[in-house]
Amino acid sequence: MNKIPVGVLGATGTVGQRFVQLLAGHPWFEVVAVTGSDRTVGRPYGEGVNWLMPGRVPARAAELIVQPTAPNLDIPGDPPVVFSALPTGEAKEWEPQFAAAGYAVVTNTSVFRMTPNVPLLIPEVNPDHTCLIPTQRAENNWPGFIVASPNCSTTSAILPLKVFQQAFGVTAAIITTMQAISGAGYPGVSSMDIYDNVVPHIGGEDEKLQNEPKKLLGDVRDGRMILADIAVSAQANRVPVIDGHLASVSVKLARPASADEAIAALRDWQPPAICAQLPSTPKELLIYRDEPDRPQPRRDRDAGDGLAWSVGKVRACPVLDVRYLALTHNTLRGAASGALLNAELLAVQGILGNRD
Amino acid sequence: MNKIPVGVLGATGTVGQRFVQLLAGHPWFEVVAVTGSDRTVGRPYGEGVNWLMPGRVPARAAELIVQPTAPNLDIPGDPPVVFSALPTGEAKEWEPQFAAAGYAVVTNTSVFRMTPNVPLLIPEVNPDHTCLIPTQRAENNWPGFIVASPNCSTTSAILPLKVFQQAFGVTAAIITTMQAISGAGYPGVSSMDIYDNVVPHIGGEDEKLQNEPKKLLGDVRDGRMILADIAVSAQANRVPVIDGHLASVSVKLARPASADEAIAALRDWQPPAICAQLPSTPKELLIYRDEPDRPQPRRDRDAGDGLAWSVGKVRACPVLDVRYLALTHNTLRGAASGALLNAELLAVQGILGNRD
Amino acid sequence: MNKIPVGVLGATGTVGQRFVQLLAGHPWFEVVAVTGSDRTVGRPYGEGVNWLMPGRVPARAAELIVQPTAPNLDIPGDPPVVFSALPTGEAKEWEPQFAAAGYAVVTNTSVFRMTPNVPLLIPEVNPDHTCLIPTQRAENNWPGFIVASPNCSTTSAILPLKVFQQAFGVTAAIITTMQAISGAGYPGVSSMDIYDNVVPHIGGEDEKLQNEPKKLLGDVRDGRMILADIAVSAQANRVPVIDGHLASVSVKLARPASADEAIAALRDWQPPAICAQLPSTPKELLIYRDEPDRPQPRRDRDAGDGLAWSVGKVRACPVLDVRYLALTHNTLRGAASGALLNAELLAVQGILGNRD
Amino acid sequence: MNKIPVGVLGATGTVGQRFVQLLAGHPWFEVVAVTGSDRTVGRPYGEGVNWLMPGRVPARAAELIVQPTAPNLDIPGDPPVVFSALPTGEAKEWEPQFAAAGYAVVTNTSVFRMTPNVPLLIPEVNPDHTCLIPTQRAENNWPGFIVASPNCSTTSAILPLKVFQQAFGVTAAIITTMQAISGAGYPGVSSMDIYDNVVPHIGGEDEKLQNEPKKLLGDVRDGRMILADIAVSAQANRVPVIDGHLASVSVKLARPASADEAIAALRDWQPPAICAQLPSTPKELLIYRDEPDRPQPRRDRDAGDGLAWSVGKVRACPVLDVRYLALTHNTLRGAASGALLNAELLAVQGILGNRD
Repeated sequence: MNKIPVGVLGATGTVGQRFVQLLAGHPWFEVVAVTGSDRTVGRPYGEGVNWLMPGRVPARAAELIVQPTAPNLDIPGDPPVVFSALPTGEAKEWEPQFAAAGYAVVTNTSVFRMTPNVPLLIPEVNPDHTCLIPTQRAENNWPGFIVASPNCSTTSAILPLKVFQQAFGVTAAIITTMQAISGAGYPGVSSMDIYDNVVPHIGGEDEKLQNEPKKLLGDVRDGRMILADIAVSAQANRVPVIDGHLASVSVKLARPASADEAIAALRDWQPPAICAQLPSTPKELLIYRDEPDRPQPRRDRDAGDGLAWSVGKVRACPVLDVRYLALTHNTLRGAASGALLNAELLAVQGILGNRD
Repeated sequence: MNKIPVGVLGATGTVGQRFVQLLAGHPWFEVVAVTGSDRTVGRPYGEGVNWLMPGRVPARAAELIVQPTAPNLDIPGDPPVVFSALPTGEAKEWEPQFAAAGYAVVTNTSVFRMTPNVPLLIPEVNPDHTCLIPTQRAENNWPGFIVASPNCSTTSAILPLKVFQQAFGVTAAIITTMQAISGAGYPGVSSMDIYDNVVPHIGGEDEKLQNEPKKLLGDVRDGRMILADIAVSAQANRVPVIDGHLASVSVKLARPASADEAIAALRDWQPPAICAQLPSTPKELLIYRDEPDRPQPRRDRDAGDGLAWSVGKVRACPVLDVRYLALTHNTLRGAASGALLNAELLAVQGILGNRD
Repeated sequence: MNKIPVGVLGATGTVGQRFVQLLAGHPWFEVVAVTGSDRTVGRPYGEGVNWLMPGRVPARAAELIVQPTAPNLDIPGDPPVVFSALPTGEAKEWEPQFAAAGYAVVTNTSVFRMTPNVPLLIPEVNPDHTCLIPTQRAENNWPGFIVASPNCSTTSAILPLKVFQQAFGVTAAIITTMQAISGAGYPGVSSMDIYDNVVPHIGGEDEKLQNEPKKLLGDVRDGRMILADIAVSAQANRVPVIDGHLASVSVKLARPASADEAIAALRDWQPPAICAQLPSTPKELLIYRDEPDRPQPRRDRDAGDGLAWSVGKVRACPVLDVRYLALTHNTLRGAASGALLNAELLAVQGILGNRD
Repeated sequence: MNKIPVGVLGATGTVGQRFVQLLAGHPWFEVVAVTGSDRTVGRPYGEGVNWLMPGRVPARAAELIVQPTAPNLDIPGDPPVVFSALPTGEAKEWEPQFAAAGYAVVTNTSVFRMTPNVPLLIPEVNPDHTCLIPTQRAENNWPGFIVASPNCSTTSAILPLKVFQQAFGVTAAIITTMQAISGAGYPGVSSMDIYDNVVPHIGGEDEKLQNEPKKLLGDVRDGRMILADIAVSAQANRVPVIDGHLASVSVKLARPASADEAIAALRDWQPPAICAQLPSTPKELLIYRDEPDRPQPRRDRDAGDGLAWSVGKVRACPVLDVRYLALTHNTLRGAASGALLNAELLAVQGILGNRD
């Protein structure tokens, strides 16, 4: 089997670097094009990038010449595939143009997440939402398409919500997050702001946390997105942690359940069958920790190569029904690796063309 | 006016040291006796203590000989007054014995907080609860008594709850805290546990957060404690911050109110009149911050000499009614300074005897 | 006695803010003019500044209208006095123009520190170097003048060196510093660079550490600066500490001395007599700590209101002669407060005109 | 080839856990016995241990029953091999008894490091020092023997010193370290001591740093250890970093060399040939970084799977001859992995018996 050639848009930023790093060892995909800012265009990626990932720039990517972001990249494939790690403003401008030019755009950006015909995807949560793609193509008259992955904080909290939705129904959730500094990119958060401190505000994050779960837990019927009818209240906080977003969540269930039933639902959960076919899927996707003091960012963020949810402290909530804690690695599961899994899903679903 | 002589029980621990430090400059009280562990008994306090406060051991306290904890301290006064910073086990053993021996015990420990006839006091919240003291004396047949201050995390969250209770009534609250490491004393939290990490568990803290507000916001009728009928759900987290507990709270109101009305209630709040007579009361007790990213532990914990509540981000809660953030300094307002204010309150109410 | 009116150049940056904060309570000086960037010019200081100091903007300063930086400020006095917290480029441009226009420029910037006729001043180290001022005025044909304070890392290390120079002579020093993040201003160091990390590089800092001690410990003879003949080797490191620069120093002495003799020299040191006349001088200027694990940034930086040197661990060096550790608060002693002390020195020496 | 069965003494502590974790995937060794404290003896290792390493207890080790530490472990082999991660007091008591009972003791403890007939080993530095083993056996009349690995801080600094010794000769070194908190084990350093702070004291560390290099860089002649004639001055500091010890070193050379010559010596260095036969040896052992701000603990500690030295900022020292920075991972290269490499070395040298 040949690898699927892909491009990375915005490859010199931190999420773009993570894409390049992860793709270097990927069994299915191979980076053949990278785009970047004016400062880096025309230079070999290995020279233009201020590499912040561990180790060195992967050898093959290092030699790629950085191109301007525009839908004329020479990427074989039908459709040609690009991962987008563009800044918000550029994503807004370019992602539709790539889709209009026939590219499959697998994006980590926030711009089109809530657009009704753009699938907001987590393979473990809503793999069937890719059926919005025909709608998207038709409504926009695009040969290509865009699929989005959710915000890193939404991702942390979502899997147990999905499990409880399936098992009991969910009508409301109150979420308080403790989020890592890497979520703000580089240079991101000033050390003078976050050291020995908590910053109880991340621009736009509360809104994302309040909206995205409704789409992720919603249904697609007749090619239309139906949002889930769940009230969500969110407070996002930045804490002095490098990686790993922790969410503390209280949930109102449609059918009351005890903490033990909720724990059993988590333990019994099976991912959608298609997840087993995705090469990045870790052995254990949802790790329930019995210890009273887990999950913890530093100790659990790397579980399942940074792709597992670590969940703990499920207990009765004296106000709603159950409380829980959930944690994921924000720059892996919550960003680049999550988008990569989405591309694997699209490949298995045959949406990226024929791989052999 | 002469100063009121006081003793400090457990004076060599971190809370005990804080008492000694704060009392060194206090206009009304003066430390004349300190008790400590076997290791330190018989030595001058200045030699026996492993001083962790800023600066040096106050000169007069340094020369006091550490005594064993027992209700035979030579402290003039009727009643003689002691501040208790004893470890839990010792508090349980000794505090009743001191009360039985006629001492006024102003404690920072948790043992008797929920005992119905022990006032759980914050002067700004429930100064009238001292009227439980006669009941306590009668029921125990004690010449002395115990008054307690609440847990440091309860303290952070409580003042806005009180304000909302007065203005709108409160029926439920969901609290998530981010608490400083100093709350665990010394050596307390291992750096290997908390650095680059959050520990989502503090032993017994969730329960304290769920119970103490009911008493603080309750009523005393006919000398009996009537707990407030408020459901509270709590998740306490330890974060890598030196001082300052931050609480994120969603509240269900008895009478719905908008965020603007809630903010107005906070801004309009006036402390009980008696607070103006307490020498430690800061100019501003409740500081409402308009900035979207406040309060923050490092930047707000020292407001009002560590005695003010900094409150912010009051907004509508899509699930309950309103959300807010509140912060106090955990070792000052939430521990030693809070207990000291309680003693000032008792003095003004004439419960510590005649001061002139 | 009336206060001396002063201006603050670059008042909206972090050092400028510190000047404004410290001057608000100063017994001798009073801010009457502030300058700032284009963005803030014309607005009241209290509105234009992004205040990062504790508490609120001092009331009187808050109402001053921010002016452009130019030597036409209306500051009474002969000479009119300005404190400079300008960025390097602007300092280079404007400080000479202010001196040429007759202002006394007390600067915290690095531009002219090593200029031979500009006094590089620490009152406790070389108060007599102000005698370079007539030379400076004559050589530049300036009615005004510039005096500079040293780099914050130099300041940390220098006082014990001075003491040893007086007692034994010093011929060489090897310095390794561990410097706080506040030294880089705001936003300064990215949290992604410094959290769980050490950055062993601060641009230009090694050179400053290697050059400035030669001037501070040098002599002025016949109005000429004679640098001290001391070889200095430096390695500056940024560590995850908010405030407080710690220097680890090995010293080669001209006349060998034991560790005990070195400690005795530190303990016996008396500051220059004039220091007693400066209102900011703390009670204890050089605090020798016997504990094997002191000085420490968090525990010692605030000694003497952030103006004292904390020194410890003096011992024999198996390679040179003696080793020591020294610590000062980098944004107080090492920056704004240090410059303020310099102004107090100039005032006492009569160089700022008649104060009554 | 069959694996060599080994025991781990003190397997429940942090270094012991690291041994168990690393040995789980080792191509040559296999853990067949673990010893622990009274609390854990008799229980399966997986239950008795408070596992602090990432992931879970390796499956096979988890089932081993924890035994008391005593030289009657059933470990096949001639000699039977044990890794020692015992606390200092127990190491002093037990390691000689194991050697006397015929075991090969590969220790990470400090007790016998400076004992003349005990090899203090780093394969890249002094692999030939194992020739002290016959002397050790003869002088003690032991069938077994002890080999030690140096202190983690010594390890950080040593490789460039070795390179310079070979190239130019070294007569003196002044070392200042910035050491990670994991070096103190668990619970180790209190967060209240190290957060927002530097602790400039680690008990006994300065002495180890001053002594161990003399042995590592010394010669064995006629079966006798001849210490290198190098004066070393050291100041060890604890900084708020999880893993990775950084050393800042100034060196006096026997034959003067420029910084460029020193850099060339580092770049040209070839490890002893035997290193290529050790399975844990990483591809690159000494990584010279050109960037002015490297090495950094968080970004470089994992180089070469935590076994590489990252070196940088070699430059002329104005006082001695050259300065450099060096960094290694303290719990891998500086502890468990280092000892494991020593065992690999012994295996290749045929000292652990026949492996096939």
